[in-house]
Amino acid sequence: MLRVSSGRILSQVRVAMPHSTYVLRQLSTTGVCQTFEPSDKLGLQDVNENVLKAKYAVRGRIPQRAEELKRQLADKPSSLPFSKIINANIGNPQQLDQKPLTFYRQVLSLLQNPDMVSQVPREKLTQIYAPDAVDRAKRMLDDIGGSVGAYSHSQGVQGFRETVAEFISKRDGVPASANDIFLTAGASAAVANILSILCRGKETGVLIPIPQYPLYTATLALNDSHALAYYLDEESNWSTDPEQIEHVVKDAQAKGITPTCLVVINPGNPTGAILSVEAIEKIFSVAAKHGIVVIADEVYQENVFHGAKFHSMKQVLRNLQKRYPGKYDNVQLASLHSTSKGVSGECGQRGGYMELVGFSDEIKQVFLKLASISLCPVVTGQALVDLMVCPPQKGEDSYEQDQNERTSIHDALDQRSSLLYETFQRLEGISCQKPQGAMYLFPRLELPQKAIQKAHELNIEPDEFYCQELLEETGICTVPGSGFGQVPGTYHLRTTFLAPGTEWIKAWEEFHKKFYHKYHD
Amino acid sequence: MLRVSSGRILSQVRVAMPHSTYVLRQLSTTGVCQTFEPSDKLGLQDVNENVLKAKYAVRGRIPQRAEELKRQLADKPSSLPFSKIINANIGNPQQLDQKPLTFYRQVLSLLQNPDMVSQVPREKLTQIYAPDAVDRAKRMLDDIGGSVGAYSHSQGVQGFRETVAEFISKRDGVPASANDIFLTAGASAAVANILSILCRGKETGVLIPIPQYPLYTATLALNDSHALAYYLDEESNWSTDPEQIEHVVKDAQAKGITPTCLVVINPGNPTGAILSVEAIEKIFSVAAKHGIVVIADEVYQENVFHGAKFHSMKQVLRNLQKRYPGKYDNVQLASLHSTSKGVSGECGQRGGYMELVGFSDEIKQVFLKLASISLCPVVTGQALVDLMVCPPQKGEDSYEQDQNERTSIHDALDQRSSLLYETFQRLEGISCQKPQGAMYLFPRLELPQKAIQKAHELNIEPDEFYCQELLEETGICTVPGSGFGQVPGTYHLRTTFLAPGTEWIKAWEEFHKKFYHKYHD
Repeated sequence: MLRVSSGRILSQVRVAMPHSTYVLRQLSTTGVCQTFEPSDKLGLQDVNENVLKAKYAVRGRIPQRAEELKRQLADKPSSLPFSKIINANIGNPQQLDQKPLTFYRQVLSLLQNPDMVSQVPREKLTQIYAPDAVDRAKRMLDDIGGSVGAYSHSQGVQGFRETVAEFISKRDGVPASANDIFLTAGASAAVANILSILCRGKETGVLIPIPQYPLYTATLALNDSHALAYYLDEESNWSTDPEQIEHVVKDAQAKGITPTCLVVINPGNPTGAILSVEAIEKIFSVAAKHGIVVIADEVYQENVFHGAKFHSMKQVLRNLQKRYPGKYDNVQLASLHSTSKGVSGECGQRGGYMELVGFSDEIKQVFLKLASISLCPVVTGQALVDLMVCPPQKGEDSYEQDQNERTSIHDALDQRSSLLYETFQRLEGISCQKPQGAMYLFPRLELPQKAIQKAHELNIEPDEFYCQELLEETGICTVPGSGFGQVPGTYHLRTTFLAPGTEWIKAWEEFHKKFYHKYHD
Repeated sequence: MLRVSSGRILSQVRVAMPHSTYVLRQLSTTGVCQTFEPSDKLGLQDVNENVLKAKYAVRGRIPQRAEELKRQLADKPSSLPFSKIINANIGNPQQLDQKPLTFYRQVLSLLQNPDMVSQVPREKLTQIYAPDAVDRAKRMLDDIGGSVGAYSHSQGVQGFRETVAEFISKRDGVPASANDIFLTAGASAAVANILSILCRGKETGVLIPIPQYPLYTATLALNDSHALAYYLDEESNWSTDPEQIEHVVKDAQAKGITPTCLVVINPGNPTGAILSVEAIEKIFSVAAKHGIVVIADEVYQENVFHGAKFHSMKQVLRNLQKRYPGKYDNVQLASLHSTSKGVSGECGQRGGYMELVGFSDEIKQVFLKLASISLCPVVTGQALVDLMVCPPQKGEDSYEQDQNERTSIHDALDQRSSLLYETFQRLEGISCQKPQGAMYLFPRLELPQKAIQKAHELNIEPDEFYCQELLEETGICTVPGSGFGQVPGTYHLRTTFLAPGTEWIKAWEEFHKKFYHKYHD
């Protein structure tokens, strides 16, 4: 038979071999060769430079230092001026004692144990599980085909996608289709796939808000494409400026860069702000005019406080399309949601979905192919999406408890955001927009010159210096504004308001006063 | 305050803005603009060409046709010559009625419901759950920090990584460290991360066995790097030829391409073969000499049949390093394992691990940073890895049942692989190497000229034509050899032996005879 050995390079398209010449060769029978000189190991110079360039501050230097301090506290509990680390750097509610919703977890527990569902008598099972949780688990096991341990369709379980489409239809008052829904491993996986498909290296630019969630710049760096900054206006509670966006688009085009996508994070991360209908409409005008895909990161749509109102970008788009026939039909929108935030807070379960609105079938096929290469999103995470978008309904056994749990989580976040906001309000050298949504405050720091000078001596950003001192003195871990982007010369930090209790807020207040006193000009 | 609008392009490294000039501008207050002409929607010409190039045959044309037929059967059960689709195209055991291991699922069920673990009295809980499952769940909840719904460390839960390190130490008889273990969402996520880090576009080549699992060529296409083919030798049960590998390395170097990694799939996918210690040693010789990273895809290490023996690449490497001091110290090995295969078969749970052997700390930091951008692998999948590498031990409540379940799954696969192999042995025009491991047979088809001609008329590969006819006649879905790569002019297909029962094997036999009769020269 034919055997080949020439060092030909496979076409990257086809696995099958192109027809060319082959050399017959016997399998070597010689022993292990010891005559060679071993080569060097890999160094950073051998690594993909796009990966080296990518930065992700949410798990950057300050949080890494917090991990060290956590280990130190475990070894020597009284060696530091505080007794525990407050991880206010990341929206990870269940790390900070937010309890999971009981109904979700009962269903997930049953899904993991289908034998129990089918074999344990109902009266015994319902001593431990709510009856509606048992029924729901049965329906979902049917949707899945019997086991969460089997690969699902790469786009996600059909039945779950139908539940998502129903949720969107109800939320927006306009139809949605399961065919347009892709279930994903959290919103991060959706962002990775969208940008991987729509970035064509250096010829592509993606408009991102500044400040932004650093997933976007990191993913763009991985794709070797340009992050085109459009600034949010702090004074008008971090709103968008369509003229500025238009200007960024034209400027990029003039440089030979195609602005392919525009990212909107609403409610905002790190800003905690919510966009008005008018602001969203103006974004769509730019998108329609220039054929730019809008990526709507709407993972905080449940986290809305103090009477603010969330408007989904899809709803605003459909209204525009109705009001101005033909003008907005070309708009392509990818809207993302996640089980990690809201009152679910199930970060570790990696559930999410993406709705593709207005994309052609051939482009949707590309999304499906890319999803198929990583086989399928985790099936329990998919199940959690189904639960999130269709919680217990009025009249069902778990309804009341579920509602109580939701209200209590929501109210606690609402109160804590106010408390933190009010604390910042009364402190010198710190100002903060009123919180409306998400899980974050993004206060602005007016740092004393001496503190800025000290930071420069340490060769770090001034806001990083503040965050570092805050961590070392109080154990509160935050992320400097420089990790999200900010108008040069301004300094911020991002903090969650997830940590329970009020003592840490008091500790922060004390630290802040001391810091300002120490570095006062 | 300062507000900016110039369309500056963000550096991909830094989120913070470079200092340059800014234009002050007021937020626009004009209404939605209707005077523009909408642009076109995206077409394939706007998509990243690397994504377009990537192919993944396991979920390609034939499996897609199978999905259509499945829907047709659901609508009109008697409209086809068969009553159900046999998905022999993908190693998805639980889709084909392989039951999950009871102990795993009991623990996972408890992990999802921590209130139950802490609040339901033990005597009530142990009416439904095995006592050792309850104890294990408690230990694991401690490891996690209380909830599977919190993000874990991006590298994976420390306690679980320690369990993995213990497993590897025992398996290989040499030490392993939790610091070198990265928990991953299945092995596919590990492959994506490794290649993303070690590929530097067109200057990089990665040696892959042909035939290969198409994840590798697909991921290389996404990274715009070269797949350098080295052929497995079918006659010697798909073994490797170190001289040929050396030749491929030198040939690539001569073309200015750096061969950075070499992929070994052992037990083999799609071949089902197992490499000898000698074959592995010779691979390491080439790796040491040229400083090539070895990627050991060892996800089928539990799937070993008919008295064959699996040798881990790490163990072979450590032995070489002991025998030849200094000669192999430069070798860098990434070894992958997964909860999707073996007797676990938990594909939908997305669990896996990667052990990095011999990598420098700075490179491991790059792996950690990339992992942190996608936050963390699903925590229940991480828990499943812990369970897989540390199942119930002798003397524990669940030991006997667990052992029985394992034996029965293993024996059923063993028997079915033999039955399928023997069937192929007695058929004209089909030959097959003796199965040793994994979940697949990769028989070779000697297709009649008329069948080849017919395929050319249809503009498809001849083995794709055979697979298509097999599907349309019997409902058995397989993947053509052309999807994995093969010596040009040879034809194969990959089939799993996971489907229960023997009727489908009989149906295949009948189809094959008819096909050969019809197209006989």
